[in-house]
Amino acid sequence: MNNWAVISTWNMSYEGLKTSADLLKKGTDAKDAVEKLINQVESNAEYTSVGYGGLPNENGIVQMDAAFMDGNTLAQGSVAAIENVKHAVSVARKLSSNKTNSFLVGEGASNYAMKNGFEMTNMLTANAKKTWQQKVKETHEHDVHPYAGHDTVGAITLDQNGAVTVATSTSGLFMKKNGRIGDSPLSGSGFYADSDIGAAAATGLGEDIMKGCLSYEIVRQMSAGRSPQEACDSAVYSFCKKLKQRYGQVGEISLIALNNKGEWGVATNVEFTFCVADNKHKAQIFTANPAPNNKTQISAFN
Amino acid sequence: MNNWAVISTWNMSYEGLKTSADLLKKGTDAKDAVEKLINQVESNAEYTSVGYGGLPNENGIVQMDAAFMDGNTLAQGSVAAIENVKHAVSVARKLSSNKTNSFLVGEGASNYAMKNGFEMTNMLTANAKKTWQQKVKETHEHDVHPYAGHDTVGAITLDQNGAVTVATSTSGLFMKKNGRIGDSPLSGSGFYADSDIGAAAATGLGEDIMKGCLSYEIVRQMSAGRSPQEACDSAVYSFCKKLKQRYGQVGEISLIALNNKGEWGVATNVEFTFCVADNKHKAQIFTANPAPNNKTQISAFN
Repeated sequence: MNNWAVISTWNMSYEGLKTSADLLKKGTDAKDAVEKLINQVESNAEYTSVGYGGLPNENGIVQMDAAFMDGNTLAQGSVAAIENVKHAVSVARKLSSNKTNSFLVGEGASNYAMKNGFEMTNMLTANAKKTWQQKVKETHEHDVHPYAGHDTVGAITLDQNGAVTVATSTSGLFMKKNGRIGDSPLSGSGFYADSDIGAAAATGLGEDIMKGCLSYEIVRQMSAGRSPQEACDSAVYSFCKKLKQRYGQVGEISLIALNNKGEWGVATNVEFTFCVADNKHKAQIFTANPAPNNKTQISAFN
Repeated sequence: MNNWAVISTWNMSYEGLKTSADLLKKGTDAKDAVEKLINQVESNAEYTSVGYGGLPNENGIVQMDAAFMDGNTLAQGSVAAIENVKHAVSVARKLSSNKTNSFLVGEGASNYAMKNGFEMTNMLTANAKKTWQQKVKETHEHDVHPYAGHDTVGAITLDQNGAVTVATSTSGLFMKKNGRIGDSPLSGSGFYADSDIGAAAATGLGEDIMKGCLSYEIVRQMSAGRSPQEACDSAVYSFCKKLKQRYGQVGEISLIALNNKGEWGVATNVEFTFCVADNKHKAQIFTANPAPNNKTQISAFN
């Protein structure tokens, strides 16, 4: 059997990753396998940072960002600040077949989804509404910066034909301003894939990740001969150091990478969970932490 | 006198570039100098691809994209699919001071501009409306793909203190879908700046430029020791070749670059005009064309 592999951000993606691994094992295309993984996370109302059940913006509206990139052709599709669509990543995938108009935002993105037959629904669950109402109250009382919860699901699949695909989906920062978008739909920042090399995806504070184009940089370093782990360590920790010096602060940043041989790597400046499966290893959740000397400590998730 | 320099895309930016050069000569900050340049292009109703007078989307609405990046701090601000705002780049500049919510799209971006006192106006001129009505008629009659006119103004300034800033502004593809955004507001694709190295900016078919993260790649190659011209030639022509092989086609792509010594470069796969001024040379317009062996032919503009 040829190599196949899948890696995804956060332990919330574990069930989706298992589905994806089963598909890749059976010979399914990397594009279908990554979409199914992300769709499963988007559907789960318990995950408050992605899709259905995602926490809303300051106005109480769930606005989502998503992207899809085919590493064979470099075709990309993205949506940002899209509303009322069950599977944002599936809209991004459809847009990736467009030669023009492949990145749509706001009302235009939502209308496109509706016209093209995607499942539309109110994405704000009763629980998410309650959390939002409580936060609005707290914010008025204490004048705090309420932003939290930027756990994007990002996933990379390598199929048995050597094709690499990457996709992302998120409801973004809780209490974000109307129309705010992060790194997840942005090529090179939130995601990048090239089947001749591999792919990378990011999660964390989008405003800081996009200052370093970290997904592109990791793929580039892999193309120069570095392993995914070496590329992640080198790109992420040097950028975090630079941003601290130049900008004064650096938000939470975590990256995953996979090359076209099925080798993977991660780097992070906070505790970060991720999931991996391949043709030699069952699906497993790991915990990553920053370690001394620009290394990443990785252990089994408890 | 210390070195200063400014470079900008397309001959439409010539008057703005002269204003910017006068400011840089007097010691004005790179950020102010680049904003003034872009503002001047945005104000001119004759330029149909930027700001006031820009050609509208398929619905007859002018939606604009813009970005601003401070190479000293790596701070960025972006707006996309923003409507009714006179100076999109000035909104992007203001957003670049935000730690979060620095990239706003659609209605959220327009509302932000209004609430923050930016000049609001109907950006659709009588001429642009007439062009749109004619194109709608032609499109219905002949079923053609009407997309054209993706002439983003991008500009890079180096001030006497060694600060580098980049900014972009565009009304995007004529007849684009509602909510479509291009590369101009995307970090690493439409623009990138690092005052320790230099900056780059792009114009052309955004959907293809973002597949290569070309602005980031050029800045990275300059950081590895290449001159701006070497970096532009190397990054742009190798990417165009790769995209043709992998994707089957490649749209119009033109890049400008400036390093922190005031040296500049450009590369393009079509005839492309640009403007340059520095402390040793008066403002001048040049024409660039692709030349054999991955080189760029540059001559005085007639």
